[in-house]
Amino acid sequence: MSNPGTGRVLLAVNAFHPQRWHELLSAEREVVLERNTDTDASITYAVVWKQKPNLLAGLPNLKVIFSVGAGVDHIVEDATIPADVPVVRVVAEDLTRHMVEYVVWRVLDHHRQGRQYREQQRLRAWHDIDQRNADDVSVGIMGFGHLGRAAASALMALGFRINGWARSAREMEGVTTYAGDAGLVPFLNATDILVVLLPLTKATTGIIDYKLLKELRRRNALGGSVLVNAGRGRLQKEADILRALDDGTLKEASLDVFEIEPLPKTSPLWSHPKVFVTPHAAATSDAEHLVPVMLGQMAAYERGEELENLIDREAGY
Amino acid sequence: MSNPGTGRVLLAVNAFHPQRWHELLSAEREVVLERNTDTDASITYAVVWKQKPNLLAGLPNLKVIFSVGAGVDHIVEDATIPADVPVVRVVAEDLTRHMVEYVVWRVLDHHRQGRQYREQQRLRAWHDIDQRNADDVSVGIMGFGHLGRAAASALMALGFRINGWARSAREMEGVTTYAGDAGLVPFLNATDILVVLLPLTKATTGIIDYKLLKELRRRNALGGSVLVNAGRGRLQKEADILRALDDGTLKEASLDVFEIEPLPKTSPLWSHPKVFVTPHAAATSDAEHLVPVMLGQMAAYERGEELENLIDREAGY
Ligand SMILES: NC(=O)c1ccc[n+]([C@@H]2O[C@H](COP(=O)([O-])OP(=O)(O)OC[C@H]3O[C@@H](n4cnc5c(N)ncnc54)[C@H](OP(=O)(O)O)[C@@H]3O)[C@@H](O)[C@H]2O)c1
Ligand SMILES: NC(=O)c1ccc[n+]([C@@H]2O[C@H](COP(=O)([O-])OP(=O)(O)OC[C@H]3O[C@@H](n4cnc5c(N)ncnc54)[C@H](OP(=O)(O)O)[C@@H]3O)[C@@H](O)[C@H]2O)c1
Repeated sequence: MSNPGTGRVLLAVNAFHPQRWHELLSAEREVVLERNTDTDASITYAVVWKQKPNLLAGLPNLKVIFSVGAGVDHIVEDATIPADVPVVRVVAEDLTRHMVEYVVWRVLDHHRQGRQYREQQRLRAWHDIDQRNADDVSVGIMGFGHLGRAAASALMALGFRINGWARSAREMEGVTTYAGDAGLVPFLNATDILVVLLPLTKATTGIIDYKLLKELRRRNALGGSVLVNAGRGRLQKEADILRALDDGTLKEASLDVFEIEPLPKTSPLWSHPKVFVTPHAAATSDAEHLVPVMLGQMAAYERGEELENLIDREAGY
Repeated sequence: MSNPGTGRVLLAVNAFHPQRWHELLSAEREVVLERNTDTDASITYAVVWKQKPNLLAGLPNLKVIFSVGAGVDHIVEDATIPADVPVVRVVAEDLTRHMVEYVVWRVLDHHRQGRQYREQQRLRAWHDIDQRNADDVSVGIMGFGHLGRAAASALMALGFRINGWARSAREMEGVTTYAGDAGLVPFLNATDILVVLLPLTKATTGIIDYKLLKELRRRNALGGSVLVNAGRGRLQKEADILRALDDGTLKEASLDVFEIEPLPKTSPLWSHPKVFVTPHAAATSDAEHLVPVMLGQMAAYERGEELENLIDREAGY
């Protein structure tokens, strides 16, 4: 431990290479692992991912909780976490880039008809498929926050038209934005490719259902509308997505997240020819990139600066 | 014909929806179709794609040849075309965007391990594959001309490192550039993903061979180097690409162009698990977008302005 800060850190990052987190945090902080810490008065910070309930309930001097990951549903849903401790979520360049890559990759694969060309290759068919121009395709980004806006910029640079939907009125040059419940149907009606980057909250659980998918624009000879979900699995109703794929409401889908993860072997999504599955891998958090951000935030906090990227426990994100 | 210009246009665009070209050019020009035009003195311009030999040989007043397509090997290789008639090639926003889409799509699919994730999906395997960061991956663009530089900008915006190779020294902010024969091996040694956007000329025919592929950097645990060819098929030696794929020199390839097109049904590329085939569809030319550009060039020429995007018949592009 070189130059340790004053606050000790409780580390509880299930399934996220805890050794690496431990090593990197230890460079500046004294780190305590999750066992036997229930009432440890020396702990100032907690760095957590999918922590066990009650882990944070009894720490008398806990000042800040850091979520490993941009999504904080694992924290909001844990009723044992003291309501008055601020929660900081990850906003990091590295994670943002990974998500932008994923979104651009999936949008281009649908737009450029990757599935159809792979099928033609299998059949040894040399046939040029009609191709729409990007400026004739609207990508609608549902959840127009940090990640949604970064994805919008990248897609705009490629020539796509962009719609954004958020809870509040968000402006962005070149984007048509829609806000709140009243804006949802108009947003969907103007969208060909729907990219979901919402957080999972009470208000958004199960929002991607058949009725919503039916509102997407399906005006083109080149196939129906497309769904890309890289937000959270419980935003979607998978039975409804399957119905929409099978009756032509949806042309294709790329899903990175699922109602139950890992996706059960029995799920029909695995073998559906119109679905591309990734194992919640759109944008992973990497200790090398995230620990310096967190250590910087702890130091700033101790200098008396305002915490950034705080979540609103009431809103749930 | 509303407001016809003075020069008549010979149209010979095999396999490119000639009716549409005819209609659109006719809005401003008198158009003659390719048959029986051998010595027609009224013809000032020719708009051609894969024209038959001798078609342009005997036109006494031919002033400008317009190539439908960015590649002009079909013109350079036609020895019957008078050497002193200038040849204009397509440089159009629309075509450039399509090519940028193709390159970004293919680079991301290789970078984000599309093939491996599709295979995992087939096996119903939920497994997060190690992912490199874009800023740790160098994309080398071979042929750093109009299309190569546009692709470079888009890939840089996603965080990739970019190398560019051209005949002459080309500078671009943020890109490491290499020039001519002396620059080729250093360029390859610094490249993980090779994107070929060269024209087909005497100097470039067969350039993508086993020896060249061996020079690509293969330093990573996440697989070998990658080839993307969207230039011309005769740049590559397909037997060498297969050898490089099979011995691990290449991890994967995306090929849009082939030594013989259409790619023969007997080619092993069709069924190779590491190859993604498209039917020369990376960036197609669309009459709606290209005809206005050409009509504008004809009008400018008649006002006495310099022709733009002229090819160098000697260099072959
Ligand atoms: N698959 C993966 O690997 C992965 C990786 C990282 C993150 N994620 C997911 O991505 C989500 C978004 O991350 P972020 O950093 O962009 O979050 P963020 O900056 O908080 O943005 C969330 C956006 O969703 C909007 N929103 C929230 N509730 C809404 C509602 N009820 N109606 C309409 N809009 C609503 C917000 O509206 P306002 O702008 O009005 O607040 C905001 O625009 C995370 O919550 C996480 O679930 C997934
Ligand atoms: N697959 C498709 O659908 C499709 C569609 C359109 C175009 N294309 C192909 O893409 C090619 C490139 O188009 P473009 O508009 O970018 O052409 P461009 O602007 O003329 O650029 C050609 C580039 O290649 C370089 N080059 C040429 N000969 C070379 C040599 N012997 N050694 C090293 N570098 C050499 C040039 O070097 P300098 O910069 O020094 O001149 C230039 O950078 C076309 O020729 C065509 O074959 C394919």
